[in-house]
Order: sequence, then C-alpha cells, then structure tokens
Amino acid sequence: MKRVKLTVAYDGTAYSGWQLQPHARTIEGELNRCLCELLSEEIQVIGASRTDSGVHALCNVAVFDTETRIPAEKISYALNQRLPEDIRIQHSCEVSADFHPRRCDSRKTYEYRILNAAFPVPTRRLYAHFTYAPLDVERMREAAAVLVGEHDFKSFCSAASAVESTVRRILDIRIGKDGDEITIQICGTGFLYNMVRIITGTLMEVGRGVYPPERVGEILELRDRTAAGPTAPACGLTLIRYEFL
Amino acid sequence: MKRVKLTVAYDGTAYSGWQLQPHARTIEGELNRCLCELLSEEIQVIGASRTDSGVHALCNVAVFDTETRIPAEKISYALNQRLPEDIRIQHSCEVSADFHPRRCDSRKTYEYRILNAAFPVPTRRLYAHFTYAPLDVERMREAAAVLVGEHDFKSFCSAASAVESTVRRILDIRIGKDGDEITIQICGTGFLYNMVRIITGTLMEVGRGVYPPERVGEILELRDRTAAGPTAPACGLTLIRYEFL
Repeated sequence: MKRVKLTVAYDGTAYSGWQLQPHARTIEGELNRCLCELLSEEIQVIGASRTDSGVHALCNVAVFDTETRIPAEKISYALNQRLPEDIRIQHSCEVSADFHPRRCDSRKTYEYRILNAAFPVPTRRLYAHFTYAPLDVERMREAAAVLVGEHDFKSFCSAASAVESTVRRILDIRIGKDGDEITIQICGTGFLYNMVRIITGTLMEVGRGVYPPERVGEILELRDRTAAGPTAPACGLTLIRYEFL
Repeated sequence: MKRVKLTVAYDGTAYSGWQLQPHARTIEGELNRCLCELLSEEIQVIGASRTDSGVHALCNVAVFDTETRIPAEKISYALNQRLPEDIRIQHSCEVSADFHPRRCDSRKTYEYRILNAAFPVPTRRLYAHFTYAPLDVERMREAAAVLVGEHDFKSFCSAASAVESTVRRILDIRIGKDGDEITIQICGTGFLYNMVRIITGTLMEVGRGVYPPERVGEILELRDRTAAGPTAPACGLTLIRYEFL
C-alpha cells in the first residue's frame, strides 16, 4: 500500500465543483472514476481544496491509497490518458501514509481576473469576469490592505455556511492591472465558503466608487454577510498556488 | 442607405470558420442572422478575413449596407444583445459606401500561441497549442527571419488552394517567450490559405531540432507544400490586429 499525491489542474466550466455529488459531474468524481479504471481498485481521493462549481485550478491537490505497482511518478501520464481534456494531472509522487492535504498547514493563492473594458472579449469570457464600469485600482488596493491579517471574516462568508469559527488569516492581497485586465491575488492559510468571491465583489464596489475604501473595515466589524458586496461570478476565479508548510 | 463597419471578436472553437456554409455554424452566418433579426432587413455582411474553422479573432472586420435609422455607433450594443456569447462586436461605425474590406490595402497580424510544458493546462487548451517537446526559440527566430519580405510562399500554402499568385509580403515575425508560453506574431499584407499555421508548424520543427534553421530558405525555394512542416492546429491561432492603410 502506498499513498500517492496528485497535483490537479482543471477548467471548472463544465463541472459542479470539486466535491463528489450524486447526479452531477465533479472533479472528484472524474478522478475516482478514472483511477478505478486505471488501477482496477476502488479509489476515493481526498482533495485539498473543494472548489465551487465553475471555479478553475492550476494546482489543486488530491491523495489516495493504492496497492498498484505502477510507480507513483508514472501515474500522472497514465491517468491523463483517461481523464477528459479539461482535467490534467501536473505531477504525481508518493507521500508518507499520514499525509492528509486538509490537515496540514498550507498556504493557498487564488487569483480573480476581471476584464474591465467597453465590450466582452469572447476568448477571455471563460476565465475572466467582464465589467464595463471603470474600476479604480488604487482605491481597491487601499481597501484590500484592511483585510490583510487575522480577522473574523463572517461578513465575507456565504450565509449558507455552517463553520465553527469564521476567523481566518489573509497573508497578502495583490491587485495588478495589465491593459484592460485587473487581477486580484489573495494568499491565505484558509478560506471560508465563497470568501474570495465576496471579497472580490466588495472590492469591485469600492473600485466603482459605490463604497469608500474605509467601508471595508466597517463591513468586517459588522460580521454580517448582507453588509458586504455581491459574490463575484465563479468563472473569474482560479486556484493558482498551493504550498504545504 | 448607409454602410456600417463592424469590428468582430470571436472564440472560433464552436464554429466552422468565418465563411457562410450550408448546414454549418459560421461567424458570417450568425452575424447575418442576428442583423436580419435586429434590423428587419435582409443583411449579408462582407468579411475582411475568412478565418478557418477553430481560429479565433479579436478584431475581424465586416461591413454591410442598411436602411436602418439606428445610429451606426449604437449597432454594436444592440447586436451584442442578440449574438451568442462567443461572438462580440467591439466597435461599429459608418464608412463610405465604397469601402470594401478585402479591396483596400491592409496589414493583418496573427498570433500563434504554443504552450511548451510537461503537461497540458486545461484553462489554456482552447487558445494555445500544447507541445511537450522543448522548443529552441533562438533557432526559431533565426529561421523566421528568412521568411520576412516578399516571397513566393507556395510551400507554405495548403495544396487544396487555387489562387493566381502565391507571392505574399510578410512585414514582421516576432517570437516571444514568457514562462512556458511561446507566441509567434506574424504581420503581413495578405496571407495564403493555412499559411500562418504551416509557417508555425515549420518553425516548430526548427525549434525541436528536426530542421536546421537554414532549411526554411530551401523550403521557400522548392515551392512545394510537402517540403514544409505540418499545419499547426487551429486553436492556437488568433487574428489580433487589422489595420487599413
């Protein structure tokens, strides 16, 4: 028996998210199905980040246990032969039997892309959220700075979520602008349900001039989802880095 | 009666190219259909560049004549409401009645994107051609320099094509590398059928070390399609600039 770690990239457009669901196409479901076929064993992967429906990833992580004699490093190639083309393993290797991707300290970076132009661009529509309202990046940076550090992010968590604590630590938020594309990179040790997309929706309200930058500190203190901005659409979001510490 | 010029962006993935065909979904067909619906007139657009099946564009150009009282500048907005989301008008304006996009001097720039990495990346699969064989960009640049200028490009033209002259002028070829992405930008006054994709396929053979860079000059002289490299896949190609002189 060995434990294998996969680094998984996917285009989330056609999937109901990572997590296994009956009657829905999910990344976890496709991985389990293709691994069972490849290894002729019952396989259930454990995922690191259960990304939402429509969210993309360059480097999500999954582990599973197997009796196979195929070397762990070769599983990436063999599995890619069976997976649909919108999921591709980037790396596979053996890890210690007690490695659990959700129970070890990690740092994740999500990137949210916004196309801020007069008209949508079809070749970018699947991986960036389009808005024509001009966004002031300097104001967005000022507002984002308030969110860095350890805070109670209850206002930035989907009301549907039931977690024990809504305290999380954001290590860094970087907002870049390259031509008509604005990118928000948020790095943290853990995120609440929809947190990155609600932060993005709120920063966009600041960028449009609907909220003053100071408002973000007040929203944090209110601990109330209705105080924050809308949840930005899933298509703009990609998990771009995953570091185990 | 007025003549209206449209700047058209599209994701070519789901289309059988620009040109109208029976029983196939084409960009031209979608534009005609949506313009007829919008203006309640029989409209047939004239396209500038009849891109192939699967090729993308940021700025193709189409003109049409109409009796409508809708200002030409507003047609972009109204038409985008009706078009499928993989086609978006970027600009519309009135032009003189004798403006014909294929009969005036122009300069077009195509960009071919190559993902040169160990594994495909799903979120880039629709707009870049993946190859794991390492490409030597310096060798590709050396080979590309031979193609700049006026030449008989018969070796770089699909054998199926029947044109009077296979002489064309390439103004510039720029090959860039940013991380694992290689881009080939080719600017010219006109191109033969599949010419950019055959040039790309040939430069990739040079990059892989299959052909020496000098070979490209020999291929030009042979005036024989079978002497050149394969036609690179359509998905990597985008029409990125169109200038009328």
